[in-house]
Amino acid sequence: MLVSAILTSVGINSALCVIFLVLYSILKKQPSYYEVFAPRLLAEGSSKQGSRFNLERLLPSAGWLSKAWKLSEEEMLSSSGLDAVVYMRMITFCLKVFSFAGIIGILILLPVNCSGTELDQIDFADLYTSSLDAFTISNVNSGSKLLWIHFSAVYAVTIFICYLLYYEYNYISSKRIAYFYSAKPQPHQFTILVRNIPVSVGSNVSDSVESFFTEYHPTTYLSHTVLRRTSKVQSLIKDANKLYKRLLHLQSEPSEQKYKRVGLCGHKVDLLDHYGKRLDDLEQNVRLKQSEALLAEDTHAAFVSFKSRYGASTVFHLQQSINPTHWLTEEAPAPDDVYWPFLSSSFMRRWISKLVVVVACILLTVLFLIPVVVVQGLTNLSQLEVWFPFLKSILDISFVSQVITGYLPSLILQLFLKAVAPIMVFLSSIQGYISHSMIEKSACKKVLWFTIWNIFFATAFSGSIFYQVSIFLDPKKIPAKLAVAVPAQASFFITYVVTSGWTSTTSELARIFPLICHLTTKCCAKSTDEGIEVPSIPYHKDIPRILFFGLLGITYFFLAPVILPFLLVYLCLAYIIFRNQFINVYAPKYETAGKFWPIAHNSMIFSLVLMHAIAVGIFTLKKLPLASTLIIPLPVLTLLFNEYCRKRFLPFFIAYPAEVLIKKDMEDQNDATMSEFLDRLVTAYRDPALMPIQYSADIDSLNRPLISSAGV
Amino acid sequence: MLVSAILTSVGINSALCVIFLVLYSILKKQPSYYEVFAPRLLAEGSSKQGSRFNLERLLPSAGWLSKAWKLSEEEMLSSSGLDAVVYMRMITFCLKVFSFAGIIGILILLPVNCSGTELDQIDFADLYTSSLDAFTISNVNSGSKLLWIHFSAVYAVTIFICYLLYYEYNYISSKRIAYFYSAKPQPHQFTILVRNIPVSVGSNVSDSVESFFTEYHPTTYLSHTVLRRTSKVQSLIKDANKLYKRLLHLQSEPSEQKYKRVGLCGHKVDLLDHYGKRLDDLEQNVRLKQSEALLAEDTHAAFVSFKSRYGASTVFHLQQSINPTHWLTEEAPAPDDVYWPFLSSSFMRRWISKLVVVVACILLTVLFLIPVVVVQGLTNLSQLEVWFPFLKSILDISFVSQVITGYLPSLILQLFLKAVAPIMVFLSSIQGYISHSMIEKSACKKVLWFTIWNIFFATAFSGSIFYQVSIFLDPKKIPAKLAVAVPAQASFFITYVVTSGWTSTTSELARIFPLICHLTTKCCAKSTDEGIEVPSIPYHKDIPRILFFGLLGITYFFLAPVILPFLLVYLCLAYIIFRNQFINVYAPKYETAGKFWPIAHNSMIFSLVLMHAIAVGIFTLKKLPLASTLIIPLPVLTLLFNEYCRKRFLPFFIAYPAEVLIKKDMEDQNDATMSEFLDRLVTAYRDPALMPIQYSADIDSLNRPLISSAGV
Repeated sequence: MLVSAILTSVGINSALCVIFLVLYSILKKQPSYYEVFAPRLLAEGSSKQGSRFNLERLLPSAGWLSKAWKLSEEEMLSSSGLDAVVYMRMITFCLKVFSFAGIIGILILLPVNCSGTELDQIDFADLYTSSLDAFTISNVNSGSKLLWIHFSAVYAVTIFICYLLYYEYNYISSKRIAYFYSAKPQPHQFTILVRNIPVSVGSNVSDSVESFFTEYHPTTYLSHTVLRRTSKVQSLIKDANKLYKRLLHLQSEPSEQKYKRVGLCGHKVDLLDHYGKRLDDLEQNVRLKQSEALLAEDTHAAFVSFKSRYGASTVFHLQQSINPTHWLTEEAPAPDDVYWPFLSSSFMRRWISKLVVVVACILLTVLFLIPVVVVQGLTNLSQLEVWFPFLKSILDISFVSQVITGYLPSLILQLFLKAVAPIMVFLSSIQGYISHSMIEKSACKKVLWFTIWNIFFATAFSGSIFYQVSIFLDPKKIPAKLAVAVPAQASFFITYVVTSGWTSTTSELARIFPLICHLTTKCCAKSTDEGIEVPSIPYHKDIPRILFFGLLGITYFFLAPVILPFLLVYLCLAYIIFRNQFINVYAPKYETAGKFWPIAHNSMIFSLVLMHAIAVGIFTLKKLPLASTLIIPLPVLTLLFNEYCRKRFLPFFIAYPAEVLIKKDMEDQNDATMSEFLDRLVTAYRDPALMPIQYSADIDSLNRPLISSAGV
Repeated sequence: MLVSAILTSVGINSALCVIFLVLYSILKKQPSYYEVFAPRLLAEGSSKQGSRFNLERLLPSAGWLSKAWKLSEEEMLSSSGLDAVVYMRMITFCLKVFSFAGIIGILILLPVNCSGTELDQIDFADLYTSSLDAFTISNVNSGSKLLWIHFSAVYAVTIFICYLLYYEYNYISSKRIAYFYSAKPQPHQFTILVRNIPVSVGSNVSDSVESFFTEYHPTTYLSHTVLRRTSKVQSLIKDANKLYKRLLHLQSEPSEQKYKRVGLCGHKVDLLDHYGKRLDDLEQNVRLKQSEALLAEDTHAAFVSFKSRYGASTVFHLQQSINPTHWLTEEAPAPDDVYWPFLSSSFMRRWISKLVVVVACILLTVLFLIPVVVVQGLTNLSQLEVWFPFLKSILDISFVSQVITGYLPSLILQLFLKAVAPIMVFLSSIQGYISHSMIEKSACKKVLWFTIWNIFFATAFSGSIFYQVSIFLDPKKIPAKLAVAVPAQASFFITYVVTSGWTSTTSELARIFPLICHLTTKCCAKSTDEGIEVPSIPYHKDIPRILFFGLLGITYFFLAPVILPFLLVYLCLAYIIFRNQFINVYAPKYETAGKFWPIAHNSMIFSLVLMHAIAVGIFTLKKLPLASTLIIPLPVLTLLFNEYCRKRFLPFFIAYPAEVLIKKDMEDQNDATMSEFLDRLVTAYRDPALMPIQYSADIDSLNRPLISSAGV
């Protein structure tokens, strides 16, 4: 790829970014777009003012920038929770790392690279049509003493990153504990999920639970809620909710629309009456299925609540039954975080689902390589001319060729990647996780490893999947292969950063998709008077993106330091834009209290070890065997450091220590509201599908149904 | 190796076995040998009678056989503990497996092998000088349909073994629980070991422990014992004990020996007086060091006791402190099982010891190959003649050559292996384990894997260590290499079974080494009037041997079924002899309540998977690719079965479930002796090196010192 192609891509994407920024600055001030650009503020009722028209509204302004900049971490913690803080710290972590690496890379490594003569000497006058390779480590002469500068840079950056990783892990751990101490009592702290409850003949699950826990944990046991299989009821309630909304909608419309001809020359039918009857039928059906579900006890699972956090924690940590496959305990999620559909599924079904998901992930990885290969083909212009000879005349235009080689490949890859995140969420959701947050965490990991494998390795070793797998089956040759393949792809990854990083982030600010949705619904004039739905940030999409850029920066900083400025621009954009979005757009749906950080930590450690492997290969290739030998201790030390961090910090992210739980319990003993909380706790984990429904009673009034649709 | 050589080896070893059996039958009836052959009975006082001489005493008899045969499992459980029962069940497990495999192997596979024509047709008249290969699977024609019989045998035996493994794991788990229920309260059930206790300035470890547990576990906490660094005191006490014994010995001797000349023409010195003074000095020194040790608090570790088993268990299972590297908990061993020397060592020291042990194990494995190579050289007679030409005339004698090729190799290997077990115990003891039983368990694992690697793989792939390692670095080629190498070694392993199995087991009965020790001490007339020391069975030596024979049988049953009768004879011998030894010789020193079984289970699973790998290789080699493909599911299913067993049974062997603990605690509540037990518990974990010593007071009386030498 030539420098000109890269510049074209940068140009197009910069233009797009500017357009998005201007669009946002103008549209966000129009009250009709508040729903798109500030749903959170709207929902909180703090953005209703200012519907009066004035000229200022049409001019782009940058007030939001300073507002986003000034937001402190404490404000963020209180408004968006610890997860948002952790997310922002991932961005600042990368910012710190790449500022440090950027100084070393641009000021020291880049001049060294340019001074080499291995490739064509750089003609600065002709820079525009030359290749980027002259700026990379490939240009340094083999056996040159200058390579020791790269060697030192690898050591310096590794030490800096490890120090930062330790600092961050420590900081977030302490935040997590502080968050726990400051939080009010929450049902999931007092509750565990028990599965595989054995039931003796003539007894039922509820009695079993009651007798087991009153016998063995009489002092701490509080109550339990048996789980029912409610998938049928859930789908019925969904139908009923739809019908109910339609009915409400009909009532508010002019009366002539309430009648409809039946048949070709039939009489008019009162639609209100018709739907009303159908709703009645549905309602009766729901009640029937609900009582059926309450009688059938085929799930053998229950939420069990305790009087103290420590009580719940001991039962969770100790094997309860003589038979280790009975009375299996799991930590309960928060009541509104529970993912009901798969909660009640049997052990066998969850086991099979898990197997299916593994196979599906492998299939997806294999099939995804097809678009990647196409993308790789597109960057090769002469290949394209051979395939499509009729395009020759168009491809000869220099701008078109630059767009095709510089911008199109990463755009296409981008579009395909858009589909991956929802697929991964779907796969995680059928894997048997019991909460939305766990599904999102699992999807986040899946998307991350998918991205690393299918973008990084597939681009580096562009070839068949079997070729890639064969490389990893022969671990001794990995560094050599990486050293050849990775530096050659520097220019592709620069365009990738620009397309996927810059444009995606600014389009996130301009909320392109919600904007389009908003405009189409407006045009079709189907005003639904539902409340504004405040979205939550899709961590499973955004965290892997940042971590993948972290991997790119860490692996490329000493190979092709030119990539770092592009990454820094991206990170600055992401920093300011996501702070703004947390203020205006996203509200937290659940709180994992920082459980996403270990994913980031592991990803960084992987990036470091990968970088070391590439360094070993590069120094061998450049005939500096001493340097490649001296790199070997670095991955070993990095992995030992990781092992230490796992021992030191990871336990916090799995369960709270006894000391913390007992202290918090003691505090609560003096709290007068505690008994009230325990009363509420008893009913906190009732399946929404089993709550009584009262559509008929509500149908005349315009009140919404009592049943919430969140859990369905 | 020719059949004649094997028969020579069998002949020599059978003769040795008969000699040992006769020797035992006669000597065991002589009262002067009771100390060797029935120390346990002697110590229990039930074998003092019958010192009157009669002729019957000189005739070999088989009364002990029926006595050993009649011993029931319940009797064994009550007299030798659950560990002995588990050990015997390992033997019966192998017996069951090889009876089943033997029927299939001898009745079905052997005729099939013999009917093949791949190798030289067997001339039954000339059997004596032919090779054993004609009886192995190597003789079956390539591509023959008869190989499907071997295929079915592999499936049948795998299913049978897995069924038995499940049954045994289940049985031993239930025995373990039953043992726990029936046992009296034991200190280690109520106690945990806490390490890395943080100490604030101006406080000490004891206060730290007291305040932490009274704050967070006020209802269950009972007491604690801080650990001191006592290695210096221990060595001093050891010296003092030696001196004390010498003094006691002197007192009982005739008076002229009590004086000794000092210098060339010096005056006589009263030795009693001389030693007495030195003992006084030592005693004062011990007291000084004891008080020093009590003041220095550099271990930051303590045994913490609780009022209930469940209380101790919750503290053990939950992370206690906010800092996960503080207040680390471990299960406490029984007081007399504690291994004091390394208990108080620091975290860093234990970590380094662990590293050193790993390196030492690798070194041992590498160095051990030297005798193995020599052994392999000895089996090759012509090679020997080239090396030592002067031996030619002797080697030409047919009997000598048969002894050298048939018997000598496994004998030499055997002698070298004798040294491995003590080395492994030593390595385990410096690895930082806190109890004798854990050291023995770890040594058992080490010896097992050492045996498998250095006997099985080193014999199969006789070559340099690098060649062996290179095979395992290329996992795809393992089955093919195994299929070529393993069947060729069948005859060597038959002689190995005969030498290591038959002769070792009967020499165990005849207690050759203790017998020699007994005779030498008797000759030197140094009668020491110490009490009889009852030995405990060295599980770390005996369990790996049985498991290794299990591996041999499982891998060879379809390759060379001729090995099975030899194994069955060995197992029958082991069955009856070890039962006899448990009655007469060995007394349990500690009780792990069956924790050795998971080692046996894992070893069997490994043997099965290894057998499957060999089968895959063999069927590929014999040009039956369909069969080798159809074997593939078998290791997968075996590993899944193992995974299930790990989930289902392994938790029992790590910790007792809450249900069991609470039930047992409830039973104790009604027990009047419980408060007395708790009083004793407070002082149960005092370091024997810190107990007061009173040699001077005892010196005139012939009482033994108050301090026990067990812990030093």
